[in-house]
Amino acid sequence: MSFPTADGLRDQAARLGFTLDDDLVEAMHTAVAGAEPAITALRDRPRAMDLAADPADGDRWVRRPDRTAGVVGNLPDDDPDGIGGLLAAYAAGERTPEDEIARALHDLRAAHEELNCTIRFLDDRAAASAAESARRWRDGTARPLEGVPFGVKDVIDVAGVPTTAGSWCHGDAPAATSAEVVRRLEAAGAIPVSKDGTTEFAVGGPNPPRFGPVRNPWHRERWAGGSSTGSAAAVAAGAVPFALGTDVGGSVRLPSAWTGLTGLKPTAGAISRSGVVPLSWTAETVGPIAHGAADVARVFEVLAGTDDRDPRSWRPVVVENAPSDVRGLRIAVPGGALTELCDAEVRAGVDALVAELVDAGAEVVPGEIPGAAAALAIGYLIVFTEAATLHRVDRDRWGDYDPVVVRRISQGITTPAQDYLRAQQFRVELQRELDAVFAHADLVVVPTCPSTAPRLDGTVVVDGVEYPLYAAQSRSTMLGNLTGVPGLAVPTGFAADGCPTSAQLIAPPHAEATALRAAQVFQSRTAHHRLRPAPVTRKTSDR
Amino acid sequence: MSFPTADGLRDQAARLGFTLDDDLVEAMHTAVAGAEPAITALRDRPRAMDLAADPADGDRWVRRPDRTAGVVGNLPDDDPDGIGGLLAAYAAGERTPEDEIARALHDLRAAHEELNCTIRFLDDRAAASAAESARRWRDGTARPLEGVPFGVKDVIDVAGVPTTAGSWCHGDAPAATSAEVVRRLEAAGAIPVSKDGTTEFAVGGPNPPRFGPVRNPWHRERWAGGSSTGSAAAVAAGAVPFALGTDVGGSVRLPSAWTGLTGLKPTAGAISRSGVVPLSWTAETVGPIAHGAADVARVFEVLAGTDDRDPRSWRPVVVENAPSDVRGLRIAVPGGALTELCDAEVRAGVDALVAELVDAGAEVVPGEIPGAAAALAIGYLIVFTEAATLHRVDRDRWGDYDPVVVRRISQGITTPAQDYLRAQQFRVELQRELDAVFAHADLVVVPTCPSTAPRLDGTVVVDGVEYPLYAAQSRSTMLGNLTGVPGLAVPTGFAADGCPTSAQLIAPPHAEATALRAAQVFQSRTAHHRLRPAPVTRKTSDR
Repeated sequence: MSFPTADGLRDQAARLGFTLDDDLVEAMHTAVAGAEPAITALRDRPRAMDLAADPADGDRWVRRPDRTAGVVGNLPDDDPDGIGGLLAAYAAGERTPEDEIARALHDLRAAHEELNCTIRFLDDRAAASAAESARRWRDGTARPLEGVPFGVKDVIDVAGVPTTAGSWCHGDAPAATSAEVVRRLEAAGAIPVSKDGTTEFAVGGPNPPRFGPVRNPWHRERWAGGSSTGSAAAVAAGAVPFALGTDVGGSVRLPSAWTGLTGLKPTAGAISRSGVVPLSWTAETVGPIAHGAADVARVFEVLAGTDDRDPRSWRPVVVENAPSDVRGLRIAVPGGALTELCDAEVRAGVDALVAELVDAGAEVVPGEIPGAAAALAIGYLIVFTEAATLHRVDRDRWGDYDPVVVRRISQGITTPAQDYLRAQQFRVELQRELDAVFAHADLVVVPTCPSTAPRLDGTVVVDGVEYPLYAAQSRSTMLGNLTGVPGLAVPTGFAADGCPTSAQLIAPPHAEATALRAAQVFQSRTAHHRLRPAPVTRKTSDR
Repeated sequence: MSFPTADGLRDQAARLGFTLDDDLVEAMHTAVAGAEPAITALRDRPRAMDLAADPADGDRWVRRPDRTAGVVGNLPDDDPDGIGGLLAAYAAGERTPEDEIARALHDLRAAHEELNCTIRFLDDRAAASAAESARRWRDGTARPLEGVPFGVKDVIDVAGVPTTAGSWCHGDAPAATSAEVVRRLEAAGAIPVSKDGTTEFAVGGPNPPRFGPVRNPWHRERWAGGSSTGSAAAVAAGAVPFALGTDVGGSVRLPSAWTGLTGLKPTAGAISRSGVVPLSWTAETVGPIAHGAADVARVFEVLAGTDDRDPRSWRPVVVENAPSDVRGLRIAVPGGALTELCDAEVRAGVDALVAELVDAGAEVVPGEIPGAAAALAIGYLIVFTEAATLHRVDRDRWGDYDPVVVRRISQGITTPAQDYLRAQQFRVELQRELDAVFAHADLVVVPTCPSTAPRLDGTVVVDGVEYPLYAAQSRSTMLGNLTGVPGLAVPTGFAADGCPTSAQLIAPPHAEATALRAAQVFQSRTAHHRLRPAPVTRKTSDR
C-alpha cells in the first residue's frame, strides 16, 4: 500500500513544520486522496529525459510569442454607461469628475448595503484625485482614463490603505506603495474608489468569516462568485464602470460570468503582479472586469507592460491595430471535458455566440484539447502547493482562517516535489495541444463555467442536479491558468433562473486582441452586456 | 516522530512509481537523514508571503545584470602551447590543421592509453573539418578558432555520434544535430576530436561501470576529477588546447582544479545547454576548460549567447572592453564554511594568488557570505530532486546504472515540494548576500575545493585526515550553481603530493570578464598553468 494513511500525511506535514489537528488531517487526507487518481495518471504519462522537460519551458511559451498582437479600440464604443460614454460626458462638460466620484461612492454604498460588496470606501483619497482630474479636464491635460472611478479587489495594494485579503490575519498596516496595476491606472487618470470584497486570500469559500458573503446583484440568494467577488458585484450593480480582480483558477472570469460581465484573464506575464498578495506564482494573473469588451480593452491597454518587480513579467507588449471585424476568423469549439458536466442553458449561450460570429463572417473549424480533462486537478496541485509554501508563514494562525482556505491549501502541504515538477511539465504538454489547435484556429470558444451563479451554501446546479462548487467551477478556466493563454468571459444571456450565462473566448498567448475584437463584434450585435440588474436602475437622487 | 522511517520513504517512493530494493531503500534513507538537519534549518528560516518569494526571482537576478560586462582578450597571450600560439603558427604557415588534428588524435590515443580519458575518437569527422580549415587558412577566410582541436564531454551532442553520458543506458543512436555549444565552436572553425570520459550522467562516482575511471595526468593513482573528468585529463595531458565540460555542483571547476587547469562555470543562462543531457535545470551550465585564462576567455566569447531552445538562456551578452590590469580591483576573501575543512596547502595557494593580485594593484576588502555554509546541502536537494524527475524514465533500468548515481539521485525521489520550493527561495536569499558583498567588492576569492585530487576509491585527504569525496568536494563550488554567479578555477601551484592546487575567482553575474582578467594578470606573473605533467612532454614523432 503506497498511498499514505491520514497518520502518514500528518507525519509528513509535521516534518515540514505544519501541526494539524485531527479534523484538518482528515480533511487533508480526503483532499489528497481525491486528487490521487488524476495525479497517478499524470505520473504514468511518459516524459523524455531532455532539456524540453525543464518546467521553465512553459514560461518560454508565453514569453516568446510567435505572432505580434494588438489591443483593439477601433470598434464603436456605444455603451453610454461605459468608460467611453463617461469620458465623452466629461469632455462635453456634462459631468464632472467630482460629481461622478461622489456618485460612484454613493451608489457603491447603496450596493454594499444590499450586496456586501465593499471592504473599504476610499472617499478622501478619491476626492483629492477627482479634484486633480477636474483640473486636468479644464486645462486640457486629461489622460486616457481621466476621472474614471474603479474598484480594487482587496488583495491588491492601494497606497495608504490596508490590504486585508479578506482575512483577519492580513493587512494590519497601510500599504506603503500602490501595486503596479493601480499605479498604472492612476497614472492614466483613473481613480480607485473602493477595496472590494474577496474570498479569503482569493482561495476561500463563499462565506469568508471576516467580511461575509457577497450577494449576486441578479439574485440575492446567489453568490457573486469568487474570488474577485466584490469587484464583480460592484461593476454589475453599476457603481463603477470597471474593477480589478485576480485570477488563479478562474477568479476574474467566473464572477464575471456569474454577474453578466466581461472579464479578462490576460496572458501570463502580460500584467504585473507586484503589490498583489500572492497565492500562486505560476498560475495567477491580475485582470480587468467591466460591462463590455470595449472597456476591458481600454483598461487592458493601460495595465499591460513589463515590470522589473514581477519576476514573471518579462515581455514587452507589442501593440498594433487589429482588424475591426471577424471575417475569416477561425473558431474552434472543443467538446470533451470542456463541455461535459455543463448546463444545457450555458451550452446554448456558447452556441448562440458562435452562431452570431459565424453570421458576422467567422468560420468554425475542428479543434480538440484532450489534455483539458486533466487540467483542473493538475492546476489545483500546483496552486495549492505554492499556496502552502506562501501560507506556511501563518501556519500557527490558521485557526483564524476561513476553514475552506485551510482545507483547500492543506492538499498542497505534502505534495511530493516529483509531482509538482511533473505537473509543471504537464503545462508544456498542454501548451503543445493548444499549439496544434491554434495552428488552424484563431480562437477557442468554451463555456466559462458549467453553471449559473452558485448558491450561498457553495453548491451549483447543472441540468437540475446539485454539485459541490469546486467540482464544477473551474473546469474550463484552469486551462488558461495552467498554460498561460488569455481567456475572456463574455455574457451570453440569461438562464431560466434569471442568472447570466457566459462563454469564454480563449486566444493564443498575447493575442488578447483577437478575443476582445470577437467579443466586441458579438456585443455590437447583442445587448446582454448592457442589461442591468434591478437595483442598479435606481439612480441616486443626488447625482 | 515526523522523520520518515526507511519503510515510510519506501512507501512514498512506491507511490511515485519508484520500486526500490532493500539496499537502495536503506541508502536512500541514509541520504535523506544525512541532509535532514540542514533542511530543517532551511525550513525554520522565516520567509514573508510576498511576490519576491517567487522562486523565479532567482532567475531574475541572473537575467538582468545591473552592470555591463565584457570578455577580456587584450592581455598578452604568451603561452605557445595555447590557442593563440597555435593560431599564430597556422597563420605563419608553420603548422597545418591537418597535421595538428592528426597530432591531437595521436596524443589523445597515447593519453587515453595511460589515463582512460576518451570515450570516442572522431577521426573521420575531424579530418574532414581539418581539410576545410586548411583551405580557409590558405584562402584567407580563417575564422576565430580555425583549425583548433577540442574535446567534448560525452553528455554533449556532436552530430552523427552517439552521446553515451558514460552509461550503458544512454546513446543508442547517433545524435541528429550538434549541441548549440558545439555548433557555435564549429561555426568559429574549431574542430571536435573526441567525446571525453564523464562520470555516469555527470553525477556518478569515480569508477563508472561502462568506461571505468579516468586517471589524473599528475598522479596515476588519483582521479582526474568529475564529472568533466576526461575533458580535463585530455587538456592537462596536452592532447587538446581546450575541452567542453558541464558543471552542476563544480563539475567544470573541480576537475580543472585537480589537473592544474583554468575552468569556467559561466553565469547561469550565458551559455546554451540545448543538446546536452540534462541533470538539473536550475543548477547546470556548460563551461570551457583550458590551460590559461586567455584561452578560456577566447572560447567563452564564442560560446556565450542566447538560444531559443534553452528555456533559461534569456540574456543577450553585452561585450565591451575590460581594462587589462587589476589596479583598484577590490577583492573579498571570505572565510567561514568556504575555508573550513580545507587543506593548508590549498589555502596557501589562495593566499599566494591574492598576494600577487595585491602586488599588481588590487586591494583586499571585507566580505563574508554566511549563507554559503548551507549552500551545499540545499544545492544537492535541488539537483537530486530534478535529477530524480529526469531519470524517473529509466527507473526500471537503474540496475544497470552506476550504484553511486542511483544512491545520490535517490535522495531526491521523496523530496517534499515544500522543501524544493523553499530551497529555490533560498537561492534568492543567498543572492542577496552576494549583492551585499559585491556592493563593495569586484571579485571574491575562495579555494576551488578543499583538497588536491581524490584517490580512485573516492576519498580525499585534508591536512592528513581522510574524508569521503562528497562531504568535501563541492563545498565552495555549489554556491555558484545555486545562485548563478560565474566561477573560474585558477591553478595556484602544487602541493607536497605532487598534485595541483586551485583558487576560485567568483564574479558578479555576467562579470566573467572581471575573473578572467584577474586570472590573466596572475598568470602573466606566474607559470603554474604552463607546467605540464610528465607524459605530455613526450611529443609524438609524427608531429
